[in-house]
Order: sequence, then C-alpha cells, then structure tokens
Amino acid sequence: MSDRVPERANESHGGLRDLLTDLPEPDAASVAAVHARAEEILRPYGALAWLDGLAEWVAGWQRTAVPRVEHPVGLIFAADHGIAAAEEVSAYPTDVTAAMFAAYRQGRSTINAFARLAGATVEAVDVGIGRPTGDIRFEAALSPARFDEIVDLAIAAVDAVDGDLLVLGEMGIGNTTPSAAIAAALAGGETAAWVGRGTGIDDAGLDRKRAAVQQAVRRIVGVTDPLEVLREVGGSELVALAAAVVAARRRSLPVVLDGYVVTASVLPLVLTNDRALDHCIVGHCSAEAGHRKLLERLGKRPLLDLDMRLGEASGAALAILLCRAALACHTGMATFASAGVSDRS
Amino acid sequence: MSDRVPERANESHGGLRDLLTDLPEPDAASVAAVHARAEEILRPYGALAWLDGLAEWVAGWQRTAVPRVEHPVGLIFAADHGIAAAEEVSAYPTDVTAAMFAAYRQGRSTINAFARLAGATVEAVDVGIGRPTGDIRFEAALSPARFDEIVDLAIAAVDAVDGDLLVLGEMGIGNTTPSAAIAAALAGGETAAWVGRGTGIDDAGLDRKRAAVQQAVRRIVGVTDPLEVLREVGGSELVALAAAVVAARRRSLPVVLDGYVVTASVLPLVLTNDRALDHCIVGHCSAEAGHRKLLERLGKRPLLDLDMRLGEASGAALAILLCRAALACHTGMATFASAGVSDRS
Repeated sequence: MSDRVPERANESHGGLRDLLTDLPEPDAASVAAVHARAEEILRPYGALAWLDGLAEWVAGWQRTAVPRVEHPVGLIFAADHGIAAAEEVSAYPTDVTAAMFAAYRQGRSTINAFARLAGATVEAVDVGIGRPTGDIRFEAALSPARFDEIVDLAIAAVDAVDGDLLVLGEMGIGNTTPSAAIAAALAGGETAAWVGRGTGIDDAGLDRKRAAVQQAVRRIVGVTDPLEVLREVGGSELVALAAAVVAARRRSLPVVLDGYVVTASVLPLVLTNDRALDHCIVGHCSAEAGHRKLLERLGKRPLLDLDMRLGEASGAALAILLCRAALACHTGMATFASAGVSDRS
Repeated sequence: MSDRVPERANESHGGLRDLLTDLPEPDAASVAAVHARAEEILRPYGALAWLDGLAEWVAGWQRTAVPRVEHPVGLIFAADHGIAAAEEVSAYPTDVTAAMFAAYRQGRSTINAFARLAGATVEAVDVGIGRPTGDIRFEAALSPARFDEIVDLAIAAVDAVDGDLLVLGEMGIGNTTPSAAIAAALAGGETAAWVGRGTGIDDAGLDRKRAAVQQAVRRIVGVTDPLEVLREVGGSELVALAAAVVAARRRSLPVVLDGYVVTASVLPLVLTNDRALDHCIVGHCSAEAGHRKLLERLGKRPLLDLDMRLGEASGAALAILLCRAALACHTGMATFASAGVSDRS
C-alpha cells in the first residue's frame, strides 16, 4: 500500500459504512403478489415484462402488495467545486450553479416542468453553493468533518421526504470532473474514457478536464476504500447523493437515479456492499461519455435513452412516468377470466 | 414481370396513391420559432437536443409556433385474419380480437390505462372483426373493393378526430404474420428474420408462421407496387393504419406510430413516396423480431425501447408522455437573459 493512503480509511464516513453493513431487503410477499396479479391480466404473457418487473420492484421496496407512485419526490443536491473555480473544466462559469438553484426554487427550470408533468414535487438542497470543495488535483475535495456534515444533511433531507418514490439529481458546475475521477479511480481502465464534454466544453477544455482527472486520480493512487475515494476526489453534492441513496433504503423508498454524476456518486456504495443499489433503478442513459459504460459496470439498464445531458434529475423525472405507467396497467384491468378467454392457447 | 402481377397494379387503392403524390410539408416558420426559443432557455446548448427536435417536429406539423399536446387521440384499428383462423400462427385463438376490442371499449385494457396517464382519449375502430381477410397463403387478403372501403373507413375515423396528436395502434390475432409478409416482400432479405413470436408462440408455431409467410411472399412474386403488396398479403387493420397516416398528414396531425404491425403497415407508403412518413415518429421499438430492422430501414429512431410486445398502441401511448415533456420544458422556463447568465462561457 502507498504511503498516500489516508489514515481515515477505516473510519465510518458519517455513518455510511455502518448503514451499508446492514441493509434492509425487499419484501418478497409483496413482489409475489404483484407478480401473480400481472399473470391474470388480459395481455400476452410477458408482453410487458420490464414494466411488470418495475411494478414488482416498487412493491418490494415499498413493502406493499398495493404499490403506488402518487407522490414522487425529487431531491436536487447542489454545490460548488474548487476545480471549476481554479481551472476551466466547464463551458459555464461557476455562478451558474447558484442561478440554476434559484431557477429550481422558482419552479422555472426543466426539472420543474418535467416534475409537474410527472406529478412530482422537487426540492433543491444546497449542500455547498458558495463553499467550493478542495481542488481535487491537489487536495481532498472534503475534509472528514465536512464529509460527515454533508452525510447528515442528506439523511435529514431524505427523512423529511413525504412521498412514495425518491428521484435523485444534482447541479454543480464542474461536477462531471469529480464524477469522472471517481469512475476512473474505482472502475479503472483508460482515464480519458470516463471524461466527457459535460455541459458542452470545447476540445481544449476537454484536454484540460482529462488532465485534471488524471492528476486527481494519480494523487490518490493507493486509496482503495471506495468511500474514501468519494471524499478525496468527489464533491459535496456527490456525497449527498450517496448518503441519500442509503437513507432511502432505510425508509422503504425506491430510488430513481439520474445521469452520469449520480451514477458515479453511488458507485462507491455498491463497491462497499454489492446489494447497496438493489432499491435503485436508473432513469436515463446520459449522452455524457462514460455513463453507458458505468451502467454496464453496475448491471443497470436505463429506462430511457434520449441523448440527454442536463442532469438536475431531468432523466430520472421522465422515468417516473414509466414507473407510473407500470403501476397504472395493474389496476382495474380486464383479466383472462373476466373476458372468458383461456390464458394460453 | 410475372404473370402473377395483378391487373390492378396501377389503380388508385382507395385514393391512397393520389393522396401520396401531393403531401403537405411542415411549416418551416413554426419550426424556426420553436428552435429559436429553445436556444434562449437556461440549459446547456443541445442538452435536450432530441426533445427539442420533438417540439420542433410537433410545431412544424401542427403548423403553429405554439405547439400543444393537450388532446392526443389514439385510434386502435381491429380486425380478424383468415390465416389465423386457418393455421395456428398465434398463441391465442381468434376470438381474443373481439374480447380485446370489448376491453378497449370498456376502458379496461392496458392501452386505456396508458392513455389515461398520458391524458389521451382512445377509440377502438372495428374494420373487420368477424370478417376475416383471405388466407394470404392462397389468396389476396382483401379484394380491391374491400381495400377501398377500409381506406374510406380509416380516413373517416381520422377526420372525426378532435385532437392535436394522433397515436396509431392495432389489434388482430395473427396480424404479425401479414406484417412479416409485407416486410419480407418489400424490404427483402431472409424471410425468417421478419417473423417473430408475436404474442408468444412456441417453436412449432414459429415454424408454421415462417412457412406461412414464405408461402404468402412466394405467391406474390413479381408484385412490385407497394400498395398492391399491402392489399395482397396485409390485413384490414393494416390497410386502415396506412390510410390513417396519410389522412393525418392532410389534417396537420403529427402521428406517433406503435410497434411492428403499425410499422410494417406504413412501409408501403414510404416506398411510394419517400416523404410519406415525415410527420410520423415511432413511439417504441417492439421486442418482436424484425421491428428494429424495419426501423433502421425507415431511418426512424424509437423514443422508447422497453422490450414491449403488446401492440394496441401501448408503446406509442407512452411516447405521448415524452412529446408532452418536450413541449412542457419550452414554456415558462428561466432563460439565460432572465438569469443574468451569458449563454456560453
């Protein structure tokens, strides 16, 4: 092991490690009840297999044979990044983070429009706007104490959720850079392959971004603890996302993940406990380079694939509509019995 | 040319041929207005490129700079097939067509649930239940007179639509068999590759189905007119679907196509006039073998890819939600100007 391994490698990371050792499982009876009901509905066996599986997934994690997606809630964690202030790794200046946060609060951003359509409420949670992380090329993004503080903030945000499905998104100019660093450090392979254009940076910016990610990854060579990698090269909203996923599990809230940043944020969880993301689906495959590869690594198939690269839970919010569709076609349906048709020829 | 070429090859096919020679184009000014508005919205340039394109598409075909999807209407054309009565090419008996038709009318089928979620109304249109087509292995599916009659029925159904978006679906036990025959006859290649399991037929059934399609395709060797192929080896609801697409064009109604059967039904149109499907998008890529290949042939990328194989406009109905999302994020949005952010760094 390198002498760069932080002393803190075995610490609790805001209680995340403890929470990850004893995760609740889905309720098998609820899953079975929904499965049995699906087989009676007047449609060819397996014709909606994926949607039926989605209904079972909601039932299992909500722990009820009558699953509902009537009050989905989106949390958008927002924060600033030291790397973005120090180096041009984004097509936009860092004050856009605060401008977008204001737009969420005013209900005037894309996510608000999608949420209204999906019958969801959205809450933007400031976990570090105006308080940028360390520049990950040279120092840890977050101190141990700050990491713990953000975990607590995120758990409190999830505990305050009054809903039946949790949708997670993020905003933070520059945050595909720490995301790429996490992916490169933990999933390996060519670093450059994890680095995309984010909001649309030009070729020179992409080169700067790749160099920054390489520098950050090299700085933590020898750090093997996934949660420690998250603290070292992640970011405030990335830590919040990871903590929110774990907190949702304990509240029986199924989770819809959004794009590249969210997926990279939760990678440390599944590398700590390989069941950690069982209660999560991925709403959308982002156009950001690396997301598809990361999803393959996680064995998660995204519900949507619309070339979007916006973040802010936009892809996950659209996926709510498919979750609602999956449940809608299980209630009040004609059955083989009611139609007087034998269920197989 | 073979002596099997029907005499009728140059006839009008219920006026379809005439309608196809003089198709309206989209309104360029409406498209440009929506495009310009999209560029002002506070989100990275191109981050929602596909959805923005969808908004422009609706605007162009609705011929308005203020496109709306507030009253989408689904038409499900239903009919019976001679081949299904004569040979086991489906996992279900032919009376399921009538049972499903009743379920649509009662609002108790999957499509009804999806339509409610999408804010759409659905109308099931009987174009031949209890009046099966000819067995396409041995004879034309439809006489010239019956073909014309169905075209008229479909045009009347579209003329009666009070809505802003048309969604097309179908029901007809056995109808993936004529669909495969149309695809094989017009798109060529290995016949077997166009034949899938439909509602879920077993291996022996799949063999019967392939043999039936081969026999039908061989019967019409030499028939080169795409509309004549549709009459020879198609089916009543397939003709209705093709006619409805053309009728919608003349009513400035953008169209969302459903799965394999719908796509096969409209293939003869685009082979008659290569602009014939410009006002159509494909809602969903079906799990039915052949659909993906057919979509590639048409150059259409489906909005959804959820392994569904139900028909009845189910995939297209879910795609309405994405059309609504595309429009929802164009109205009332924060702009770069309102947020005081320059639009590019």
